[in-house]
Amino acid sequence: MPEPEPHDPGVQFLAEIHEQPDALLRLLEHQVEYARVAEQARERGATTVRMVGHGSSDNAASYGVYAFGLMPRWTAFRDSISLTVHYGTLLDMTGTTAIGLSQSGRTPDVVSYLEQARRNGAFTVALTNEPESELAEVAEAVLPLDAGSEHAVAATKTYVNQVAALGLLAAHVGGEGPEFGAGIRRVVDELGRLIPALQRSVLPIASAFSFTGRMFVIGRGPEFATAREIALKLLETTRVAAEPLTATDLAHGPVAALDPLFPVWAIASDDESLSAVLEGAERSRDAGATLIASGAAADAIPDASYRLPLPNLGSRLLAPLLSVVPGQLFAWALARARGLDPDRPRGLSKVTLAR
Amino acid sequence: MPEPEPHDPGVQFLAEIHEQPDALLRLLEHQVEYARVAEQARERGATTVRMVGHGSSDNAASYGVYAFGLMPRWTAFRDSISLTVHYGTLLDMTGTTAIGLSQSGRTPDVVSYLEQARRNGAFTVALTNEPESELAEVAEAVLPLDAGSEHAVAATKTYVNQVAALGLLAAHVGGEGPEFGAGIRRVVDELGRLIPALQRSVLPIASAFSFTGRMFVIGRGPEFATAREIALKLLETTRVAAEPLTATDLAHGPVAALDPLFPVWAIASDDESLSAVLEGAERSRDAGATLIASGAAADAIPDASYRLPLPNLGSRLLAPLLSVVPGQLFAWALARARGLDPDRPRGLSKVTLAR
Repeated sequence: MPEPEPHDPGVQFLAEIHEQPDALLRLLEHQVEYARVAEQARERGATTVRMVGHGSSDNAASYGVYAFGLMPRWTAFRDSISLTVHYGTLLDMTGTTAIGLSQSGRTPDVVSYLEQARRNGAFTVALTNEPESELAEVAEAVLPLDAGSEHAVAATKTYVNQVAALGLLAAHVGGEGPEFGAGIRRVVDELGRLIPALQRSVLPIASAFSFTGRMFVIGRGPEFATAREIALKLLETTRVAAEPLTATDLAHGPVAALDPLFPVWAIASDDESLSAVLEGAERSRDAGATLIASGAAADAIPDASYRLPLPNLGSRLLAPLLSVVPGQLFAWALARARGLDPDRPRGLSKVTLAR
Repeated sequence: MPEPEPHDPGVQFLAEIHEQPDALLRLLEHQVEYARVAEQARERGATTVRMVGHGSSDNAASYGVYAFGLMPRWTAFRDSISLTVHYGTLLDMTGTTAIGLSQSGRTPDVVSYLEQARRNGAFTVALTNEPESELAEVAEAVLPLDAGSEHAVAATKTYVNQVAALGLLAAHVGGEGPEFGAGIRRVVDELGRLIPALQRSVLPIASAFSFTGRMFVIGRGPEFATAREIALKLLETTRVAAEPLTATDLAHGPVAALDPLFPVWAIASDDESLSAVLEGAERSRDAGATLIASGAAADAIPDASYRLPLPNLGSRLLAPLLSVVPGQLFAWALARARGLDPDRPRGLSKVTLAR
């Protein structure tokens, strides 16, 4: 029998973080398809958006709420899967677009949900890396993510492409597709410069957190998706009990759990919700928590012990495409500092078939 | 100066847990108001429901998704507050009922949201303990919770009354108000027996978890609200980093963080989503996690180290009114075992004015 090849822990995860600019460029080659699906949704009057997915896909859906809200001013929400799939509830879904998000296109309850949503009158859209998958088959329209094969179990480029894809679809619905596409190109340029620099910056910070057991990650508005995704990367790859909270929900109870050994990561973007993030950071610091601040407005957070600042793209909806990256790289570095392999978290496989 | 009165830690929190049956009976005296608001929503064709709140109020809203879905088959969702309040997005909210949940009726962004929702065409409803509050003033209709004054900072009877109130409103919309009211009466009877018995059962379990730093709480369907609320009680009163997850989301990443010192609390009710909870519990056990099982189907979870079984009420939508109680009492017992005062968590006050 051949020996298994020696494996450098996290090599795939890191490589896929670096591939994100290329993955975004591949997505942009599908602009025509995004414009067409946007047109179909408008023609059908399917102006309320239901999104379903698990894990990173569900985190991207949190971004979708803001993409559809801020661009075409459509109401979008993360729908309950179990109401339809487990309880068989026949909701009237006419006038709605149902988007199923699944990297593999095989997540069982997302496939079942979309099947039923179609029967309930929704315009159904599959957003997936696999345009030949079951999910694509049951949907009326397929939007390819084209993130490319992802070998590390924890998603990185799939997540970023899902966020960009929801933004692109919402932008086309709102008649600003070309501008948003140009924005993604700016993100690609920034990422090319940022990723190598951030890879160096996270190392000393990660080693300071080698023994951390718990963490809150706070954000608000479109960056709540980022908070959720960073927390999930930490759970998956570093085994830190990281919980995402909106900056305001933090004050409604969870702040009581903080102490100097319970750090808080605050994602600060330079937009209208910054005041809420600043207030959450202040409450965290008052509770004695160590603060990590990232994002374009990281420098606005007083008393942060660590900062991972990002360039300001001047767009609330482009910012999340950059702001997840410090969290991905921090998770990579922290996993290695803790002797874990972020490519192969225990108990996970690439395609999750849990019902 | 008078000495502050000596305070027995958790005495208020425990007293308010015991007051829950009486609080529910007070809510039932308002059935006429609930029926009237249901009628108004129907007359206005406001058949999609947006709910907003923070902390326990937001947890209750998770239940509302199922109450409106399963009874009148209306789509309900937890809406983004920041989209409207921070970003000033003018969404078309005609055809929707917007419910603002706030114990005090003073939560600033919930008040602002409801004000704006009314201008955006929503039928606006305040669900609060304070019918003279700002929230009540800006809303077109007020539904009193009548949970009675709550002195412990961590909500108990307010949460249970919010859940029952959303159920009652949804039931009246669906033409089954009197039946649901009768169901609440059955819950009241059960709670009277259950609370003293559970108060004894949780003590040895809580002492086994005295040194626990992190925990997941899993549930699905209407019991996801319960998972969220139990996790919040633990964060607020015991400083355990407790994170709620749907049983299925657990498999999509977070399961990798589990080990024998990272326990999982599984809420198992005897309904169509039980299979998902069983699968989540099995994955947790495979990762070596210690399991606590509660709910009417607690005995269906193999290998649980601790069980807090509940009577089966034969109703998916009544079950959550009972199933939060083991978590409330466990939080009370664990806080005391850790030398904390669940009445007065550090850094919290009863009315949270965070923006």
